[in-house]
Amino acid sequence: MNTQNSDASAPSGTSPLDKFFAVIPAGGVGTRLWPLSRAAAPKFLHDLTGSGSTLIRATYDRLLPISGNRILLVTGEAHREAVCRQLPELADDDLVLETEPKDSGAAIGLAAAILFVRDPETIMGSFAADQVISPEDKFQDAVREAIHTAATGKIVTIGIKPTHASTAFGYIRMGAALEVDGAPSAHEVAQFVEKPSQEIAEQYLESGDYSWNAGMFVAPVELLLRHLKANEPVLYEGLMEIAMAWDTPDRVAVKNRIWPTLPKIAIDYAVAEPAADAGDVAMIPADFSWDDVGDFAAIARLSSAKEVKDVKVIGEGARVFTEDSTGIVVTDTKRVIALIGIQDVVVVDTPDALLVTTRAHSQLVKRAVDGLKAQGDMDVL
Amino acid sequence: MNTQNSDASAPSGTSPLDKFFAVIPAGGVGTRLWPLSRAAAPKFLHDLTGSGSTLIRATYDRLLPISGNRILLVTGEAHREAVCRQLPELADDDLVLETEPKDSGAAIGLAAAILFVRDPETIMGSFAADQVISPEDKFQDAVREAIHTAATGKIVTIGIKPTHASTAFGYIRMGAALEVDGAPSAHEVAQFVEKPSQEIAEQYLESGDYSWNAGMFVAPVELLLRHLKANEPVLYEGLMEIAMAWDTPDRVAVKNRIWPTLPKIAIDYAVAEPAADAGDVAMIPADFSWDDVGDFAAIARLSSAKEVKDVKVIGEGARVFTEDSTGIVVTDTKRVIALIGIQDVVVVDTPDALLVTTRAHSQLVKRAVDGLKAQGDMDVL
Repeated sequence: MNTQNSDASAPSGTSPLDKFFAVIPAGGVGTRLWPLSRAAAPKFLHDLTGSGSTLIRATYDRLLPISGNRILLVTGEAHREAVCRQLPELADDDLVLETEPKDSGAAIGLAAAILFVRDPETIMGSFAADQVISPEDKFQDAVREAIHTAATGKIVTIGIKPTHASTAFGYIRMGAALEVDGAPSAHEVAQFVEKPSQEIAEQYLESGDYSWNAGMFVAPVELLLRHLKANEPVLYEGLMEIAMAWDTPDRVAVKNRIWPTLPKIAIDYAVAEPAADAGDVAMIPADFSWDDVGDFAAIARLSSAKEVKDVKVIGEGARVFTEDSTGIVVTDTKRVIALIGIQDVVVVDTPDALLVTTRAHSQLVKRAVDGLKAQGDMDVL
Repeated sequence: MNTQNSDASAPSGTSPLDKFFAVIPAGGVGTRLWPLSRAAAPKFLHDLTGSGSTLIRATYDRLLPISGNRILLVTGEAHREAVCRQLPELADDDLVLETEPKDSGAAIGLAAAILFVRDPETIMGSFAADQVISPEDKFQDAVREAIHTAATGKIVTIGIKPTHASTAFGYIRMGAALEVDGAPSAHEVAQFVEKPSQEIAEQYLESGDYSWNAGMFVAPVELLLRHLKANEPVLYEGLMEIAMAWDTPDRVAVKNRIWPTLPKIAIDYAVAEPAADAGDVAMIPADFSWDDVGDFAAIARLSSAKEVKDVKVIGEGARVFTEDSTGIVVTDTKRVIALIGIQDVVVVDTPDALLVTTRAHSQLVKRAVDGLKAQGDMDVL
């Protein structure tokens, strides 16, 4: 038995679940989903699967049964209005607005620092706003196990059981089982590994010891900040200074002064990997289905949208005619779209930009964005 | 020698060329060019080849050196404004407006009747408004020969030397040479034949005796009307009644009363084929290049537009990015269009409708129009 488990839960006599606070970092343009997803309307603001909910709304709703309304949302100032339209229940104190993008280290670190100042015993969980997960109860079970494990003094990542030998994700190699009350699946993490080659990915899949690193983790804010301080002291100091001012009249002034000076670093490098080396990271292997909706092929795969003959159509009020065609149409407009004799096509129609590609080329859409940037067509990016 | 030749040209002592009046029937939506071409903006109003001129403007300009401004334009009332914008030099008397489409028999027949009432010795030539021809001087030489031949009392069709075994056109089989002053290439017509099978088309091409029937003909209006009267007396009587009122204050009233009652028939059946059977049809074989711009594959072939990498782009102010793609983009909008990894694609972008197909399927675009009609999407047709 892990003694820290008893330590953490004993004093107050409450369950670790009561200390939980969810954090949703909502950033990332989703360049491979251009022109649907773009700087002014990033991926998380779209209903990419035809579920009836935007990704951010679905993420929030998925967390509610675990956290209640103890949810902090971190996003860019530019998205405030759109996010609040999606999540009208957000109070002002639930919203952390970045004045400019500073990567996940600063975004998640600031959330941790604010929560720490409010209550140093908080256990936070970080869940990106643009992922598709089902079934929800399996996800929620895994998060609850992660919270119990975090309460023993661990940063706990949730590893996704791979369904194929993906080269698009990092992997987590599982270590020995841990004995944690309320977390029967908890394991040590033997190693984080970067995106592998196809050959290596196939070995991972076969071995059964590797999970996808979905970037979801649960941790006591105190422990997270301790690792951040050790690895990125400048970032830590800046974030703590902002956090100390956060619930005071100085919030905006201090944030505006310090935020632009903060270093850009991913939370994986700033916290997770050094913590793993220190033996402070655990994992919950989970086998719910998970997708980061990385490209239009993923949308075609995930979407429950109606099909017009063999073409999947996503978009309210879409007017599509197809003949002898296969693929997917995503539309943000009311224009009539006709496909004749074209196979495996991806058509994305927005008021000011149109993409035509194939499912096989979905991963290359980023090149269009780069190319348009080079041409100076910034208005549609 | 044909005595009618001397008869027709002798009395006035002038050349048959002085009796010439060009008629441009501008009708036909060009369904296979949807959504660019449509009821409200038919094919002839577009610059489909990137030449800088719309097809109707180019047709008019091509005839000017032969006819001067003796040009009658027949089109739908709905297109009056657009046509006059393209041809601001048109006088009111040069414009014949149909209240509803009645096929080529009525359209060309009315032009013939009006010209007959104005001057019964007129030789008219009919040239559709939506064809691409080059070089112009070869076309003009052929028309002049046709006028000289028509003056001998013939309906004279211009046959186009086939460049391939097309199954999309009717053919004309050449008969014996005629001796006509000013028309060294004049021949009898042995036979008109309908669109052939591929096998037959190849035999035609090989034999060298067959020309494409481009629907261009030159004829004394009196002779044309004589055949129309014999074959379609109801149509003839109606057209003559309108023509008698045309240059009087009763024009609109009479037209509005009679036009809706007229039978619909193509000029080929109403005049050309019966006249051929009567031995009254001649031909001028010509070898200028000719295209009726029947589909987007034709546009890709004919267009002199700029290429963005391997994609032909037609449209003022087009903003196109392509990578690893081939095909054609035709745009009526200023939207950014990105093509990634798609081959032989046809993308036609208009404000309210988008078509995505392949060059090989260009001929099937009509099906989209039929399908949209069936769906009730009339607003974009």
